Amino acid sequence: MTTGFVGDWNRQARTGIAEAVFCQSKSTAQIADILGEATNGQHRMLFTRLSAEKFADLPDSARDALNYEPVSQTAFLGAISPVSQPNAICIVSAGTSDDAVAREAQRTLEFMGQGASMVRDVGVAGLWRLMERAEFIGQHRIVIAVAGMEGALFSVIAGLVNALVIAVPTSVGYGVGQGGATALHSALASCSPGIVTVNIDNGFGAACAAMKALRL
Amino acid sequence: MTTGFVGDWNRQARTGIAEAVFCQSKSTAQIADILGEATNGQHRMLFTRLSAEKFADLPDSARDALNYEPVSQTAFLGAISPVSQPNAICIVSAGTSDDAVAREAQRTLEFMGQGASMVRDVGVAGLWRLMERAEFIGQHRIVIAVAGMEGALFSVIAGLVNALVIAVPTSVGYGVGQGGATALHSALASCSPGIVTVNIDNGFGAACAAMKALRL
Amino acid sequence: MTTGFVGDWNRQARTGIAEAVFCQSKSTAQIADILGEATNGQHRMLFTRLSAEKFADLPDSARDALNYEPVSQTAFLGAISPVSQPNAICIVSAGTSDDAVAREAQRTLEFMGQGASMVRDVGVAGLWRLMERAEFIGQHRIVIAVAGMEGALFSVIAGLVNALVIAVPTSVGYGVGQGGATALHSALASCSPGIVTVNIDNGFGAACAAMKALRL
Amino acid sequence: MTTGFVGDWNRQARTGIAEAVFCQSKSTAQIADILGEATNGQHRMLFTRLSAEKFADLPDSARDALNYEPVSQTAFLGAISPVSQPNAICIVSAGTSDDAVAREAQRTLEFMGQGASMVRDVGVAGLWRLMERAEFIGQHRIVIAVAGMEGALFSVIAGLVNALVIAVPTSVGYGVGQGGATALHSALASCSPGIVTVNIDNGFGAACAAMKALRL
Amino acid sequence: MTTGFVGDWNRQARTGIAEAVFCQSKSTAQIADILGEATNGQHRMLFTRLSAEKFADLPDSARDALNYEPVSQTAFLGAISPVSQPNAICIVSAGTSDDAVAREAQRTLEFMGQGASMVRDVGVAGLWRLMERAEFIGQHRIVIAVAGMEGALFSVIAGLVNALVIAVPTSVGYGVGQGGATALHSALASCSPGIVTVNIDNGFGAACAAMKALRL
Amino acid sequence: MTTGFVGDWNRQARTGIAEAVFCQSKSTAQIADILGEATNGQHRMLFTRLSAEKFADLPDSARDALNYEPVSQTAFLGAISPVSQPNAICIVSAGTSDDAVAREAQRTLEFMGQGASMVRDVGVAGLWRLMERAEFIGQHRIVIAVAGMEGALFSVIAGLVNALVIAVPTSVGYGVGQGGATALHSALASCSPGIVTVNIDNGFGAACAAMKALRL
Amino acid sequence: MTTGFVGDWNRQARTGIAEAVFCQSKSTAQIADILGEATNGQHRMLFTRLSAEKFADLPDSARDALNYEPVSQTAFLGAISPVSQPNAICIVSAGTSDDAVAREAQRTLEFMGQGASMVRDVGVAGLWRLMERAEFIGQHRIVIAVAGMEGALFSVIAGLVNALVIAVPTSVGYGVGQGGATALHSALASCSPGIVTVNIDNGFGAACAAMKALRL
Amino acid sequence: MTTGFVGDWNRQARTGIAEAVFCQSKSTAQIADILGEATNGQHRMLFTRLSAEKFADLPDSARDALNYEPVSQTAFLGAISPVSQPNAICIVSAGTSDDAVAREAQRTLEFMGQGASMVRDVGVAGLWRLMERAEFIGQHRIVIAVAGMEGALFSVIAGLVNALVIAVPTSVGYGVGQGGATALHSALASCSPGIVTVNIDNGFGAACAAMKALRL
Repeated sequence: MTTGFVGDWNRQARTGIAEAVFCQSKSTAQIADILGEATNGQHRMLFTRLSAEKFADLPDSARDALNYEPVSQTAFLGAISPVSQPNAICIVSAGTSDDAVAREAQRTLEFMGQGASMVRDVGVAGLWRLMERAEFIGQHRIVIAVAGMEGALFSVIAGLVNALVIAVPTSVGYGVGQGGATALHSALASCSPGIVTVNIDNGFGAACAAMKALRL
Repeated sequence: MTTGFVGDWNRQARTGIAEAVFCQSKSTAQIADILGEATNGQHRMLFTRLSAEKFADLPDSARDALNYEPVSQTAFLGAISPVSQPNAICIVSAGTSDDAVAREAQRTLEFMGQGASMVRDVGVAGLWRLMERAEFIGQHRIVIAVAGMEGALFSVIAGLVNALVIAVPTSVGYGVGQGGATALHSALASCSPGIVTVNIDNGFGAACAAMKALRL
Repeated sequence: MTTGFVGDWNRQARTGIAEAVFCQSKSTAQIADILGEATNGQHRMLFTRLSAEKFADLPDSARDALNYEPVSQTAFLGAISPVSQPNAICIVSAGTSDDAVAREAQRTLEFMGQGASMVRDVGVAGLWRLMERAEFIGQHRIVIAVAGMEGALFSVIAGLVNALVIAVPTSVGYGVGQGGATALHSALASCSPGIVTVNIDNGFGAACAAMKALRL
Repeated sequence: MTTGFVGDWNRQARTGIAEAVFCQSKSTAQIADILGEATNGQHRMLFTRLSAEKFADLPDSARDALNYEPVSQTAFLGAISPVSQPNAICIVSAGTSDDAVAREAQRTLEFMGQGASMVRDVGVAGLWRLMERAEFIGQHRIVIAVAGMEGALFSVIAGLVNALVIAVPTSVGYGVGQGGATALHSALASCSPGIVTVNIDNGFGAACAAMKALRL
Repeated sequence: MTTGFVGDWNRQARTGIAEAVFCQSKSTAQIADILGEATNGQHRMLFTRLSAEKFADLPDSARDALNYEPVSQTAFLGAISPVSQPNAICIVSAGTSDDAVAREAQRTLEFMGQGASMVRDVGVAGLWRLMERAEFIGQHRIVIAVAGMEGALFSVIAGLVNALVIAVPTSVGYGVGQGGATALHSALASCSPGIVTVNIDNGFGAACAAMKALRL
Repeated sequence: MTTGFVGDWNRQARTGIAEAVFCQSKSTAQIADILGEATNGQHRMLFTRLSAEKFADLPDSARDALNYEPVSQTAFLGAISPVSQPNAICIVSAGTSDDAVAREAQRTLEFMGQGASMVRDVGVAGLWRLMERAEFIGQHRIVIAVAGMEGALFSVIAGLVNALVIAVPTSVGYGVGQGGATALHSALASCSPGIVTVNIDNGFGAACAAMKALRL
Repeated sequence: MTTGFVGDWNRQARTGIAEAVFCQSKSTAQIADILGEATNGQHRMLFTRLSAEKFADLPDSARDALNYEPVSQTAFLGAISPVSQPNAICIVSAGTSDDAVAREAQRTLEFMGQGASMVRDVGVAGLWRLMERAEFIGQHRIVIAVAGMEGALFSVIAGLVNALVIAVPTSVGYGVGQGGATALHSALASCSPGIVTVNIDNGFGAACAAMKALRL
Repeated sequence: MTTGFVGDWNRQARTGIAEAVFCQSKSTAQIADILGEATNGQHRMLFTRLSAEKFADLPDSARDALNYEPVSQTAFLGAISPVSQPNAICIVSAGTSDDAVAREAQRTLEFMGQGASMVRDVGVAGLWRLMERAEFIGQHRIVIAVAGMEGALFSVIAGLVNALVIAVPTSVGYGVGQGGATALHSALASCSPGIVTVNIDNGFGAACAAMKALRL
């Protein structure tokens, strides 16, 4: 190979979003290389989809340099400032199975210095649970809504609150819901106007978009 | 052709559902033939998906013999009894565009002697409209829920009321919602247990199933 | 996380269906947490898609508290009453490979105090086997039909008996039948009116719907 | 264009199947050209998917030269021998809407000098109609089964008779059945062994395969 | 029908988005009814996907009451204020074929009192055209990017500017691009973080989301 | 469970095809049960998709009773007669990767007492290899053609020989060819008339159909 | 609209391909505008997918300025040089229905000053027709192969000749072949290495790629 | 089996491409057999998709005979000449995850005696990285562009350089990008004319096509 890895170190200045490394389709060796270059250059970096197995396979020094959180499968390289504006963004998730994606969004925000409220287990099968929290949710400027299966949560929230709703469909489901396409299509085809959507399981992308919207 | 049309005249006795003719993929000539045989045999018969154009193309005598309703594209051949038990079934639809399918369900029930309440325009984008009618809807034993687009209505109703919910996804929508697959998948993948589903736009089938459930 | 798991403990009163926990997309730790909260609150609870591996990984106390059945991958927490009305519902399955889903339906009914007849191995490739049992099946008020591959069983049963037919397509099959979409589509597109359908492999959902229909 | 139409005039000798022209994606001018060359060469030729509109647009001399049948949208050029062996092949169709495809198969056989029995309107929703004809159907060596919607007819027939079953799925249906994919997949995923399948609406292909099988 | 159309007249107060009527799946009669009720109630209302044919079929009085624009197929009922903040939102479109959707977004914003810059014909096949406009585009806080075919525009813009990018895939394309799914998937799977997406051809939804983001 | 496994022991008499057990979706315990019942009843039986792992897990007595062949993953229970008519059927396969499916067809025929010629490695990428064998292939009455990837072999063979061609698409391939759908669609959409098709990887079904055709 | 149409007039210098206008998704008014600007600027321009209906609707002056060919639905604006190197590229098509796409490729080449040989009606159902022309085809450096249905032609040609094969799948077909996806997938999944592919019906794109390859 | 493996040893002479063995769907035993025959015949041979696990399972003598490279999963049998014309082809890849496919293309070229430049990590999310390398890339006659996710790289490169662009979509991605279909469709539906495409992850095929184009 004649060309090594070239970090997009100025991405944050150019687009407002720090560089992140998506680890799912990379080998442990590739991840260690990237980590090494970032460490040498004293760059901050976010690692996503870093499974516990891959993290365990990294060299000791690499593991020590990272702030790793296993539910979200994320790791931070570099210093983290205390989060600010915790009441600007609310992450709402439908069920326990959506925790990993909701946490990925929260950790991404944290890496960018932004706090967020978490409201869990408010799927519409028990609509009263959501209604009880609706006023609290509505006090935030942005809602990141995380749901799999049929994704009815997106439409219901967007019909209840004034905030910008960023839908994150998850791959939680089986049969026709398998892989998350049903939840994704529900977000896109919603009868409630003003919902925007990111890819299935993309908690990271939702957090990036929320930061962009917040900085407007 | 060595074999002509053979009506399943005893279907009602055998399965509790009268014979119906699905006209969408039949020519006007084929419909007129079937109508002629039924008339000769003095059989009652329901025609579905009989478009206004095809109805207009039928011979005068055929048109006179039929009780035709254009929104639902249904026609009755034979006498209709006054409907009974109007409070047993409630047909709930999300928007004006779902009227045709909701009406097909209502007319099918009417042909079988069964009344039904109609609640329209209660899509979840305006959740308060549905909440205001929830108590009324909950007084029925069966809810036929009719919705296109993302079909969030199915999950919300099933989370609110005790009734058996029969979901009828409609082909109303565009983009990923085109043709009704998103609404169908939302019904099937719903996080609310106890929803059952019929084919896209199949108001007739929902009414047949409701009759079977009611006669248990 | 600022909000822990919140059970929908009143779901049974509100919708007639007790709370159930879908374990497939949950970690053993998450399942143990939910079980702990339910035990503390003295709530009854049904666990579905609890694989033998996950069950074996639960703490001893958790395993002791559960009535586990491996074919259906279901577990009961809390007391079970003797079942009633065994002749109201008949669960009919096409082949040995459909046993897991048929058993999930049966166990769900049992958890709700409802008995059911079981008729197995009556796929239409050997139509005489089904015909021999048709009269027995027809003595029930609801038929839960469980089949994979091409799902012809749904149409044939609905053409033979008066009962409400709830189709449960299964993921049994290969090639175009892989994952169960063919069986699902066969149920939805059936030429026999009055069939209703639930998601692929959703024996639990079929049982919930059957209970709702029975309580009408 | 440097190369004109070149008929595969020896196809019959080489493969046992005479040349046929699929007219659906050809303009009237193209069809007339092909017809002209065949006429000049005194070749027999079968035209399929020749709509009534296109047939009407052909020159008078062309129309006079053809034996046209509108339900099947087929035309014969050249002499037809009396058909033989009418009891070798039985064409069985599920409903009136499947007539066009069943007739295309019958006409193709007729063009090749082969007779066929026709059994219509025996969809499994009225299983008794099929059972009454089962013995008659079973007296043939090959069954061409024509059905749309969920295509349960294929599995049921193959479970009842000894004949080779050639399934012809049709595009009759709506919702998930739209376009014929559900019927096609049902034929392919059938639990009854020994069914073979051709493309959706391909009555012509089924007839060609039947001829090949018969000539073994 | 026992229940007429019920406008969600308070939607604007509740969610910040005025009520809009999607006309594509409604008959002219249904549209005229809705318009009548809105006029009687002195409500402002936006009509989308109102084709020139349907508009021409409306009664004279209805046509006179509406501010209709044929490219975007939108109509306004009620007074329009002068637009404000024209430099906050930039609508960027890839080609002439995307004009209708870009205009739908612009008209929706205008109906809500919001101006927008328009940058057209900057598809990436002529990347220099986009690069020449990049600085101008980057001066806006939100970019609504409108593109069909392969939708590469979304990724390129998000890699160039700091603004929040709302992608509107269009149904412009053929072959694998037919219907817009390729452009939609490109937006969702983009390697550029921070893009959010709405349904295919949904210029209205993008404008609603932009307004929500702007009002944060 | 109130009903045990019921073999369709008379299937051979009724449909000409002996009972076979598809083992892929059955547990080892279920397979052992079925084997036990068949042994007790002194029935012959064919097992397909019996992986080497599952075969190894069967009890010793079960393994001893079976004639197992690992490439085809088939096992015979009961006596096998010497095969007859080896020149009636030719199994033609495109590449080494298609061997498993070709062998399943061959073994199924062998179980029914029917021999077959095997022609391997004649994919159309090296058309001369196929042309060299074309005359030999053409001496058979039925060709079972086995191919994955793009499945061009089906059309080419059907254009070369007079025999009935039964296409068996295989799941060999990657990218758009993954899972076998491309090869299946190629068989169904072939420009060569007279091809019939079975499900992906269904060597067993092709052999059953060939036997039915041969016995005509 | 603040920005009018901006032609990419330097595309030819930059990428070697002159600007072309895809007319299918443009209105007649939009096409006339583009034509006007090109005429004013004395630019040469190619119009593709310009249907006879749209061409007839253009103003007289516009029609006079264009060299229009109806089979390919293409028009030239500006002078055409005599074509060169006619033996470098061979356009091979499977059937009469593929003529429109083959002609689009030929006309695009002609607009760029490049001649091409045409070989028609050599689909593999009549393999001998292709074999007779194989030597002639093999004398060219590039083959543009045009086929719909199952697209077996691509693999067969690539196995026969040394030339670079550019596959153009067409939308000719029905059932599973409808819209051209089967032919496209056959080209991509071909067992013959060295085939490259363009979008369905994209004769224009194939010609552009051929020019790029020729100019290497 | 009556016929063993028959190598297409003359393929190189006939089509300019040496024989290659796709190992993914072959067992280790099958690979060893093929290798043995090639060794005996003193043929050169390329093995692709030979995983490290399968390579490790080969007999020692086989492993010794092969030049194996693990990232690309390729192995060479036989002598390799020094590569020539390194500035003719440039392989450009979007991210680290695309390395395996880019390397497969490079190794295939190397096996055919052809060098290539490598430009890595130039995905459009950091457009400046690509722009910085654009002039270098443009100095080559052919660009093999390798990208997954949304595949915007293909359109951008084709809009920047004069070279023939061969797109290799990769299966890198998740959600709607899973499996590579989005990147594939982006290449096919590109707004930049002159791109040609091979199957997902088919670095080998792209290299073969590049060699054919280069030898024109």
